[in-house]
Amino acid sequence: GVNAHCEDVLGFSHAEGQHFLNEAFKIIFEEAVRKGIDKNEKVCVWQDPAQLEKLLDLDLRDCGETHDQLLSRVRDVAKYSVKTNHPRFFNQLYSGVDYHALVGRLLTETLNTSQYTYEVAPVFVLMERVVLTKLRSMVGWSSGDGVFCPGGSMSNMFAMNLSRYHTFPQVKQQGLWSLPRLAVFTSQESHYSVMKGAAFLGIGTDHVYSVKTNQQGSMDADDLEGKIMLARSQGAVPLYVNATAGTTVRGAFDPLDRIADICEKHGLWMHVDAAWGGSVLFSEKHRHLVKGIDRANSVTWNPHKMLTTGLQCSAFLVRDTTNLLQRCHSANATYLFQQDKFYDMSLDTGDKTVQCGRKVDCLKLWLMWKAIGTKGLAERIDRAFAMARYFAEEMEKREGFQLLYEPQFVNTCFWYIPPSLRGKENTTDYKDRLSKVAPAIKERMMKQGTIMVGYQPLNGEINFFRMVVVSPHISLRDMDFCLDEIERLGKDL
Amino acid sequence: GVNAHCEDVLGFSHAEGQHFLNEAFKIIFEEAVRKGIDKNEKVCVWQDPAQLEKLLDLDLRDCGETHDQLLSRVRDVAKYSVKTNHPRFFNQLYSGVDYHALVGRLLTETLNTSQYTYEVAPVFVLMERVVLTKLRSMVGWSSGDGVFCPGGSMSNMFAMNLSRYHTFPQVKQQGLWSLPRLAVFTSQESHYSVMKGAAFLGIGTDHVYSVKTNQQGSMDADDLEGKIMLARSQGAVPLYVNATAGTTVRGAFDPLDRIADICEKHGLWMHVDAAWGGSVLFSEKHRHLVKGIDRANSVTWNPHKMLTTGLQCSAFLVRDTTNLLQRCHSANATYLFQQDKFYDMSLDTGDKTVQCGRKVDCLKLWLMWKAIGTKGLAERIDRAFAMARYFAEEMEKREGFQLLYEPQFVNTCFWYIPPSLRGKENTTDYKDRLSKVAPAIKERMMKQGTIMVGYQPLNGEINFFRMVVVSPHISLRDMDFCLDEIERLGKDL
Ligand SMILES: Cc1ncc(COP(=O)(O)O)c(C=O)c1O
Ligand SMILES: Cc1ncc(COP(=O)(O)O)c(C=O)c1O
Repeated sequence: GVNAHCEDVLGFSHAEGQHFLNEAFKIIFEEAVRKGIDKNEKVCVWQDPAQLEKLLDLDLRDCGETHDQLLSRVRDVAKYSVKTNHPRFFNQLYSGVDYHALVGRLLTETLNTSQYTYEVAPVFVLMERVVLTKLRSMVGWSSGDGVFCPGGSMSNMFAMNLSRYHTFPQVKQQGLWSLPRLAVFTSQESHYSVMKGAAFLGIGTDHVYSVKTNQQGSMDADDLEGKIMLARSQGAVPLYVNATAGTTVRGAFDPLDRIADICEKHGLWMHVDAAWGGSVLFSEKHRHLVKGIDRANSVTWNPHKMLTTGLQCSAFLVRDTTNLLQRCHSANATYLFQQDKFYDMSLDTGDKTVQCGRKVDCLKLWLMWKAIGTKGLAERIDRAFAMARYFAEEMEKREGFQLLYEPQFVNTCFWYIPPSLRGKENTTDYKDRLSKVAPAIKERMMKQGTIMVGYQPLNGEINFFRMVVVSPHISLRDMDFCLDEIERLGKDL
Repeated sequence: GVNAHCEDVLGFSHAEGQHFLNEAFKIIFEEAVRKGIDKNEKVCVWQDPAQLEKLLDLDLRDCGETHDQLLSRVRDVAKYSVKTNHPRFFNQLYSGVDYHALVGRLLTETLNTSQYTYEVAPVFVLMERVVLTKLRSMVGWSSGDGVFCPGGSMSNMFAMNLSRYHTFPQVKQQGLWSLPRLAVFTSQESHYSVMKGAAFLGIGTDHVYSVKTNQQGSMDADDLEGKIMLARSQGAVPLYVNATAGTTVRGAFDPLDRIADICEKHGLWMHVDAAWGGSVLFSEKHRHLVKGIDRANSVTWNPHKMLTTGLQCSAFLVRDTTNLLQRCHSANATYLFQQDKFYDMSLDTGDKTVQCGRKVDCLKLWLMWKAIGTKGLAERIDRAFAMARYFAEEMEKREGFQLLYEPQFVNTCFWYIPPSLRGKENTTDYKDRLSKVAPAIKERMMKQGTIMVGYQPLNGEINFFRMVVVSPHISLRDMDFCLDEIERLGKDL
């Protein structure tokens, strides 16, 4: 029944809850922050899934637990989780920690609001606008629109949907049946979200034309034009080109200016998936890699990758100034977007997205930017390039490491060739044997917890490592360590 | 250039960064937690947008700021943000704070990983599985599948996409052009994400048939059957019914058993959007509201609403046991889902979603569940019902408050009728004048910061308040306060 004292129902009063929060924060700080970046600690404490499930006692039961029990659960979750903040974590396109961004995340979580209206998110509505405007200005646009999305995959989907609505506004009401068959274009090394997007939006993966890449992994613009012709000849209407600035595996940049020429010529929407590579815009030295990005119609840019804001932070930026984004996505729900509000309703940006509740993703980026400034962010980008450069150079000095090609970006793709395979390039089972080396080293590194680097096959190339350097805390010694460690783990294979 | 000391680039060393983190946490605790729930503090500190923009100094500049400056920014962001944890915040379907869930969120942010593979999220891959299994078991399914989505709108889209793929698997490759025109059905009071989903998936909003609701806001099952016939007669193929368990504004429950009968009869996919109302499954007393939910093919359930986990936490649950979810959404990226991993690849659940990077959304729910147990959660649900009951009863004792109808759930919809309008129901401008009352009171409550309650028009009914009770910390006195306050703010209108 109802009673005015809610302590019983809560399990804890506010005072007890706040005490727990403070105690838990100390443990989070110790286990996930302090140990999480300590080189003397492991980057991961590998456990077999069955074993880990037992250790964690994950089952949810009828009755609750004491604070002490819960604190040890916090400790365990931290202990057995991968330390992505650790200087030996090179496994994904995110790594390392920025303490300002982390503070932004903690504050976001504590305030717990949704980004849709000025009413419930006054600070964040204004902040998101400033951050998006700034990102757009770096792209080269003095006006435009945008919204933060839950990840780059969603941002890429937004782009595809927007291009479709732009060209065929009836699609929103009438669906794809009222449209000719569409064709979209993306390079064979582009991110898989383009395929997922085409499937999800009802366009179908068969209507995604895969454009060839050159030796470095950049889109072959001639082949793009060929594929546009091919699509036409097959009765489809070319709609949309996804150019990639920083491919996922090889870090290649598509030739944006050439692609823009082609899109202009054929009247196609040009999207740049700069989820990974967009951050080179900070660097005077490396910005040339995305020359022509300002000619795009839309851009995906994930600060949660190279800028170390923490997941999730993906900006979807649009050059359009006609409110296309909102017209495309709006549903005008009257319970959220009342027409008789006492403030300027254009501040309620919730209808620019297909989401309803939307996490606040701007604060972490904003606070970090305030902390180190555009110059500080630029320095970090330059530094990551230099680190990757150093890594590739050192590799060439060592026997047994083989670069697949000269890196353009901070992805370094290479094979480690154990002594037993050196000089055997021409034996029949060489490829077969070499393809097993990376997975074997990977297993060892995970089980020993010393470093984490990913591997994959690509375009017919057998399993190779992809080293990614983004964390601002990485030093040259970490680069050396990584090479030493791969050698140590693989030399007997 | 590269140097082995990264302090310059970072702006701070680890030690300084960690010191900043600890100092900032104290401020977050004081400003957003302690003051954020204090009845003597305002629920919001209203500022005009132009004024707020000035106060916050949002601009992003070339150079960074000192720690002291940043700490005062943290303080300002907290100060001017709406306190959704506050006992006087009734504005959305989320409110209040659970300290365990908050700890789960802070730990999630600190560990900063993505949910796609066992490799980088071993704890969370296992944890998500356990949590989803438990939620499914509450729905009544001993097997099945699921994934956490960035919000209920996305979960609802997943359902629509899954139903389409289930019936017409060729859609993934060939797109909607290879399919007959589809029809989907949802009540006129269902959430707008169904419309957004239909537009986004290329189905088109014209193919969403709006089913009538009865006086309380529940779907009229006879009309559903009528609309199915209508769609057929118009040459469309009925595919999908979205039933709502807990509508957004009125908190109505659609008759799930009757809808299941109709879906079975016509061979349609039945989805239950229980984003809001799913949590009644915890309550023995109120569970009957969703009787028949186990007959659905899929369910959306948002613990970030009634269970107070914090945004975002939306479970998409599927009854299917044939890996439909993964078959529908997968792209089999070889750089993430290598086929030669040394552990059981079925643990890598990233291909069940259209996202790539995916925030960890399970930990906050899991930790809260561990803390207070299924029974504690059940008590909270019962308590929220009782609070809402009390609110409606008290209202009937007061002059000037008028319920729109007897509430089924924890949404209470009502008009406040100021003395100047009482007894004037039959005057010609009554509706016009009454429709201005809620917005006027709303403006005053925001500017004075004493409470936050939302209003909206609906189905031809003029602006009314929607009171929502979910926070476990709410007491009867808070209910009384809310009524007093609306009276105080509106009596001279
Ligand atoms: C080039 C590229 N685009 C898009 C994405 C997707 O971003 P997200 O993981 O945020 O969905 C990625 C992720 O790695 C990527 O590398
Ligand atoms: C019934 C219903 N379904 C779906 C949603 C969407 O959930 P989300 O805001 O998480 O996208 C809502 C949000 O209020 C809702 O009330």
